[in-house]
Parts: sequence; C-alpha cells; structure tokens
Amino acid sequence: MPHPLDCFFNPRSITVAGASNNVTTMGTMQLLNLLNDRFPGPIYCIHRSEESVFGLPTFKSPAELPEATDTALIVIPARHVPEMIDGLGRRGTKTAIVITAGFRELGTEEGRRLERELVETARRHGMRIVGPNCMGIISPPAKFNTTVHPYVGAPGRVALLSQSGTYVTQVLHYLGERGWGFSRAASMGNSADVNVIDGLDYLAQDEATGAVAMYIEGIPDGRAFLEAAQRCSRAKPVVALYVGGSDTGARVSASHTGALAGSGDVHAGAFAQAGIVQVDRIEDLYASAHALAHTPPMRGPRVGIITNSGGPAASIADTISRLGLLLPEFSPALQAKLRSLVPPTGTTGNPVDITFDMDTESFLVKIVDAVISSGEVDGAVIHGPIGSLFMDAMARVVGHRLQMDNAPMIEMTNEIIDRSVGLIKAGGLPVVISAFWGKGDSSIDRYHSAGVPCHMSPESAVRSLRALYDRGRFEVRFTT
Amino acid sequence: MPHPLDCFFNPRSITVAGASNNVTTMGTMQLLNLLNDRFPGPIYCIHRSEESVFGLPTFKSPAELPEATDTALIVIPARHVPEMIDGLGRRGTKTAIVITAGFRELGTEEGRRLERELVETARRHGMRIVGPNCMGIISPPAKFNTTVHPYVGAPGRVALLSQSGTYVTQVLHYLGERGWGFSRAASMGNSADVNVIDGLDYLAQDEATGAVAMYIEGIPDGRAFLEAAQRCSRAKPVVALYVGGSDTGARVSASHTGALAGSGDVHAGAFAQAGIVQVDRIEDLYASAHALAHTPPMRGPRVGIITNSGGPAASIADTISRLGLLLPEFSPALQAKLRSLVPPTGTTGNPVDITFDMDTESFLVKIVDAVISSGEVDGAVIHGPIGSLFMDAMARVVGHRLQMDNAPMIEMTNEIIDRSVGLIKAGGLPVVISAFWGKGDSSIDRYHSAGVPCHMSPESAVRSLRALYDRGRFEVRFTT
Repeated sequence: MPHPLDCFFNPRSITVAGASNNVTTMGTMQLLNLLNDRFPGPIYCIHRSEESVFGLPTFKSPAELPEATDTALIVIPARHVPEMIDGLGRRGTKTAIVITAGFRELGTEEGRRLERELVETARRHGMRIVGPNCMGIISPPAKFNTTVHPYVGAPGRVALLSQSGTYVTQVLHYLGERGWGFSRAASMGNSADVNVIDGLDYLAQDEATGAVAMYIEGIPDGRAFLEAAQRCSRAKPVVALYVGGSDTGARVSASHTGALAGSGDVHAGAFAQAGIVQVDRIEDLYASAHALAHTPPMRGPRVGIITNSGGPAASIADTISRLGLLLPEFSPALQAKLRSLVPPTGTTGNPVDITFDMDTESFLVKIVDAVISSGEVDGAVIHGPIGSLFMDAMARVVGHRLQMDNAPMIEMTNEIIDRSVGLIKAGGLPVVISAFWGKGDSSIDRYHSAGVPCHMSPESAVRSLRALYDRGRFEVRFTT
Repeated sequence: MPHPLDCFFNPRSITVAGASNNVTTMGTMQLLNLLNDRFPGPIYCIHRSEESVFGLPTFKSPAELPEATDTALIVIPARHVPEMIDGLGRRGTKTAIVITAGFRELGTEEGRRLERELVETARRHGMRIVGPNCMGIISPPAKFNTTVHPYVGAPGRVALLSQSGTYVTQVLHYLGERGWGFSRAASMGNSADVNVIDGLDYLAQDEATGAVAMYIEGIPDGRAFLEAAQRCSRAKPVVALYVGGSDTGARVSASHTGALAGSGDVHAGAFAQAGIVQVDRIEDLYASAHALAHTPPMRGPRVGIITNSGGPAASIADTISRLGLLLPEFSPALQAKLRSLVPPTGTTGNPVDITFDMDTESFLVKIVDAVISSGEVDGAVIHGPIGSLFMDAMARVVGHRLQMDNAPMIEMTNEIIDRSVGLIKAGGLPVVISAFWGKGDSSIDRYHSAGVPCHMSPESAVRSLRALYDRGRFEVRFTT
C-alpha cells in the first residue's frame, strides 16, 4: 500500500483551481508548467466562467468533476479556499496543495481563523494539505511540477523539504548548472497540516531519494521532529540548514511562514543525536546533500589531499583543521611509494602535491590508488583536475601560432578519469573534487556524471567531507 | 618618480629566458600568453641554441641584449638561475620574475643555498626579484601577463597578493564568469626578495587599485607586515584569507612556499588593528574584495533587507545575527510609508518582503529609496531581482501556447534597475544584491556593470556586508 503522502509526489491525476486562459496569473503559469513538463495523467480545471482552460476539461465546481483526482492544486483567493477544500473533499479527493497566501503568516486573527477553518475542513474529509502559502511540489520522476519554474535536467537523488518556496524554485537554474537534481522537492509554506515531520516520514521510505535536505525556519514539535529525523536518518542521510536558531532568524521566520522558531530544545546537539548533519549556508545544503546522496560516509576524520596546486592544498588543510577533521602525515612506506609518482619539487607527506605537472595519469589514477588503498585516510579531496576549459584557454594562447586540436587530449584525459572513477567507486571511501571550473569543463563533467561530488572551491569541498564525517559518526553510533 | 616595484606591474620592455619554439614547455606558454595579450613593448628572448623564438629577437646571453629591459621573466632550471640573474644585473635590468621552482620550498640544504645565492646576486646589482617558485604577474592595465593563463575580461579594481599561484591563475575563468577583474595580481611564490610587505607598499599608492586582497600562508616579519598593512589600509580597503593560523595550515604552508607560518603574534585582533578585513573562504576573498573596491563601507552594523522571498530573508537575518550585524525593526513612520508599496501578504518591519509580486518598480526603486534614505540602516541587501533568466524560463513554460517576446519587459526592467542604481549611488550607503542567477541574467548584469556587488547566495551577500562593516569600523578609528 502506498504511503499516505504518495499522492503528493506520484499523483495519477490532478484538479487545478485558479488557472484561467490569462497567462499572467500565477495559477495559469503553474498549470502551463504542468503541461510543459508533460504530466502524463488527466488534468481537470475548475473555473466559474471559463468554458475550457487551455483546452482542458473545465468545470464550475468540484462536484462536477468526472473523477476524484489524486491531488488538487489550489491558487484561488484565501477566503474561498475552505469552501473549495470542502467541495474537493466531498468529491473524494484526498490531498490538496494550497499555494494561496494570506493565512496565519499575516499575524492577524482573521488569518489564523481562516487557516483553522482550512485545516478543520480538510480533517473532516480525511484530506491532507500541503501549504498554504507555498510554491508547491516538484517531483521529477513523476513529471509533476506545480511551481511556476520549469525543472531543469534529469531527476536527482536529493529530496528537499523547504519552509521557503524560493529554495525550491528560484534555485533551479543554479542547481541545473551544477547538475544537482531533485528526487522530490516540497515547499511546505505554513505547514498547516503536512509538515516537515510528515515529509521525513515519507522520504524515509521513498526509493527515489538517496538523501534528504531540509531548510527549516521553525519546528512545530521539537520532540516529534527529532524522532522523525532519527527514523529517517536510519534509512538515509539527512542534512539541514536551520535559520530559526538566532533571535533575529526566529523573528523573521515567524513573519514569513508563521513558524514557531527558536525553540530552545532544538539545538545542535539534539540535531546530531537525531542524525541531522547541519550546515550554515544554503550552497552547502545543496552541495552536502548531493555528496551524501552519492558517496559513502567518512568512517573517521582522516583526510588525504591530492593536488597539483599548493595554495588550495593549504586552504584545504586549514579548513580541515577548523572543521575538526584530521590531516595525517603519511607513513614512510606510503611516502616512498608516492615519491616515484611526484616530481622532485612536489610533496608526498599529505598533501600529495604534484605541482604544476601534466602527468594526469599519476595525478588522478596512480596517486589516488595509493592514497585510498593505504588504510591511512577515511576520505580524500582531489584539487585541480584539468579538462577542456583549461585546454581551450591554452589553445587560445597558442592558437594564432599553431593549429591545435584539443579533442585527442580531452579524450585521453576522459579515459584517465574513467579509471580514476573506477578506483574511487571500488575503494569505498568518499572522494570529492575541488576545482574552479564547473560542469562546463570536460573533466569535472566526467567526474560529476559518474557520481563523484564536484565543488567550485577548496573550502566547500572540505565542508562536504565534514558532512560525510558527521554522517559516518551517526552510522557508527546507531549500528553499535 | 615611479615606485621601485613599478617595473613589475608597468614594464615597458621585457626579456624572457626559458621560452623556445617548443609550445609544450611552461616558459613558451608564458611567452605566447604575453604575445596573445598584445604586450605593447619590445620582448627579447634568451636562448642558447634557437636563432629566433616565435619571430622575436633572440640572444645567447643577457650581455648581447640591445637594451636593459624593465623586467625579465625567468623559467630556466633552478641551478642556472643565479647566473642568469647575474648576467641581467650586469646588463642593467632592475627587476626579474623567477617562475622556476626548486629552491627553499624543497626543504633541502641545496634548495636553501640556491635561494640565498639568487638573492645575494640580485642584491649585488640592486635588482628586485619576484619569486622564485611562482606563477608570475598579471597586470591587465599594462597588458602584461606572465602566467600561462589568458586574462579574461576588462581590468578590475582589485589587486591580489597571493602566496598561491593557483589563486592568481586557475581562478581566471571563475572570476571572469562573475565579472570580477584584477587591477594587478602577483603570485609571490617563496617571496625570497619582494614579499607581501613590499606589495602592500606598492599597492597603497597604485591608482589602478581600489582594494587589496591577500592570500597569505605565512608572514616573514609580523610587525613589519602589520605596519605595512596599516599604511595600506589608510589608503584603501585591505582584505585577507590567512590559512597559516592553524597548526595544520602552517605545516602545509611551510612545504608549499617555505613560509614561516603560524607566527603567534599575528592573530585576528592584530589584523583588525591593522585594518585587515579577514575572511575564511577563497570565494569570500574575491567577493568581499570586489565589494570593498566598489561601494562605501558600512558606517554602522544596521542592515536593511529588501526581498521578494521570505526564505532568503530569513537566511540573511540569521546570518546577520551570526556575523554580529544588526537587523533593526523599522520605525512606525517608515513602516507606514512602506505599507502602500507592499501587498497585504508582505511585511514592512525589516525585512521588507513584497512576496511573489511583479511590481519591480516598487521593489527596486520606491522601497529601496524609502529604506536607504530613512537613516535607519547603514547598508542593505536586496534579494531576488528578476531578469532575463527568469523571464526566459517563463517564456519556455508558456512558449508553446503563445508567442511571447521578452525584449520589451527586459528593457522596462533595465530602465527600472538604472533608476535603482542611481538611488543607490546617490544614497552613499553600501547596497548588495543576492540572487541565484549570475551575470547571465540581464538584471544582475545591469547591477554588476554599474558597480553594485552581486552575490550568488544570501549568506555570501551578508558576508560581504560584514567585510564592509569591518572596513567602516577601521575608518572610524583611524579618522578619530
């Protein structure tokens, strides 16, 4: 039997209330997005006056619908929402996504009353509600996207539960550029009914999801939240950005989604106990969640650094130290093995620094193999793989002198990276890439596509290793 | 009379030792880069056997050079470097950039000896040396780039002194994508002669430079460094990423550039005293330096938030709190003024949140005007300007339904942003933009091109405001 929330993420049919033939309204844009992403099931519209909305079957009220759809998208004025929910409930629809704002978050008695009425109406019919005051749900495996933004790229392995709609929608371009996809993403809004606790319960059993990311402003019930988080953490990694912890963050959160933030009982220690990995920047939430979904955790704090560049190595080392990880000096035996792979000006003690050297095979295969098979590290960061962007820059330099064709060199590098990836996957340790090139570079794209996490800076790479270490500590604790 | 180091940044002529007609060597790539960037002065090569290198006048030894060039680029094996310096010194050349590695950083007696010999030889001729073991200098206003990477984009206002060559070169694509340009950038390498102290002295008086960024692994003379930093800070903002402070960072730095890192006398308090703004991620170094070079400092800690999105506003608020800035609640008078510009579901108390609303003129002009002219804030962050990337995404959604032409809407938005920029410039307060779109978006590009700092995340925007506040505190202290 599917999970009660499954209709939100894998609906077979949908009713839309609030779309019309006027493309400038939010409801219409959301409907067009559903059509654009080729939602495969039937879509029915409810509209008082339109005969048909963009060619879809359209009805005056829920009572006239030919079937009870799995879910409904509601984008009508707040005062009409409870009545619409009532109609849908009578027709037999069991879930609804309420985009409309103007409820509890207003801070007025009328707003609170309307939200209570919404919830009570839904409960009467056994309906579950996402929202109100949200941007909706994106579920790429189901081709289901109720937001105004087109989803970019393939489905990913990260699910996001967010008390901000922006972190579900305005980021899609940013995430798409990095190749970081969602399995599911839910803008929770006021969480009048379905809240982050329900979301954790659903995602724990969701096979499309490899890791759960949360953006949290406030927690309705600290104890229930931590219990749900712990249950979910036992199934898969959970990472959170929690902004309601400071007085200032709590005040702003309250006016945003009416969240009861800053509850003193939800602090870092409790988060760790529940297996929640914490980050403090939104970029780190996406980056760490992606890493947690694609690589094994760090089983201990020891990091190996493999680099062609001393500055990033020093930055990585300093960040390792500040984040409470360790940079062990390699044993004489391992250093002797590395010595033949590193030029005389390089170093072998950890970092392994090959300096500005073009021997990509030593850099990305032989040294990686030696380090990750040594038993001396629990994870590694590789800074500086070189691919098409560097090679093209070089070609521009020598281009007016020579006819230079990068294709064979890129192909050769790709083959080396495939071997590097093979070693990393077989090694069972987390390895992350740091480089100032994004997915536009052939080598970074190759690592990324194979599931090796890639970061645009040394510090961000270490931040994700720290998340993998936090995850590893939790796994050790709950399995022993 | 020009500054003694001016020959490094504005040379009129250059000698290259170590380039040949073989394009796979580093020296040749560097020479080709100089040619590629159209260095306007004469370039002479020194080579034992080549008659001519890429058509340039080529000589067997420095003695045969037709003139004493302003500087020399040296990329020959380490053991030959002292002799080459001696020859150049005899010929009258006063500066040299030594790329070659294999000196003190090796940690061997031979490496130390060779470096001493290099320095003593230079001193005998009154020559100044940048390096050895460096990637060279980039000086876009002089079309002078001795690194292997092409410079991207127009000259900027930020000068970088870096103990890492990578942070001068491997980042050029990354910086170019963000529109963050260099006025000067020097990879200092081992700093055997010219060090960061000399660099600060030069940049303090350099009119092309609006702010100085430093990547520091170790400090040769803490007291002299802090004095130089303070002198430079009096002329313009100085920001640093210092990775030699932790034991781990210090150990790795020592093997990278032989730096004497971790000197206990150089701590955060001393940095602040000298006016050095500190950051702890390389991205923040570039971002904060760019902001410091383009906007006035924060004269106090009070931040205003103007947003169309509650989640980023809560993240900004939480980060403000964690970084020691303030989010004042706006006065009733200001809130009354804002009320008419914000929809009923929005907020006016700070953040000013217009929610998902398309009234760009209220968002970016009227509200910005009300907030920055209120006297209630010392700076502001605007999250969420919308431009071509969002509009194009929308057009894709409705595209197969309607012919939609975004050009008029983008043009209208651009005009609004021009008015927004005009207000920001006239207001005299720092205002930074946060958005998940980069320069590829028309609105972000418009703000960026007008010198309003743009950030790819809420937290990074606040980080740059904190840098502007640190700068403001220093200015208050040294002017009172």
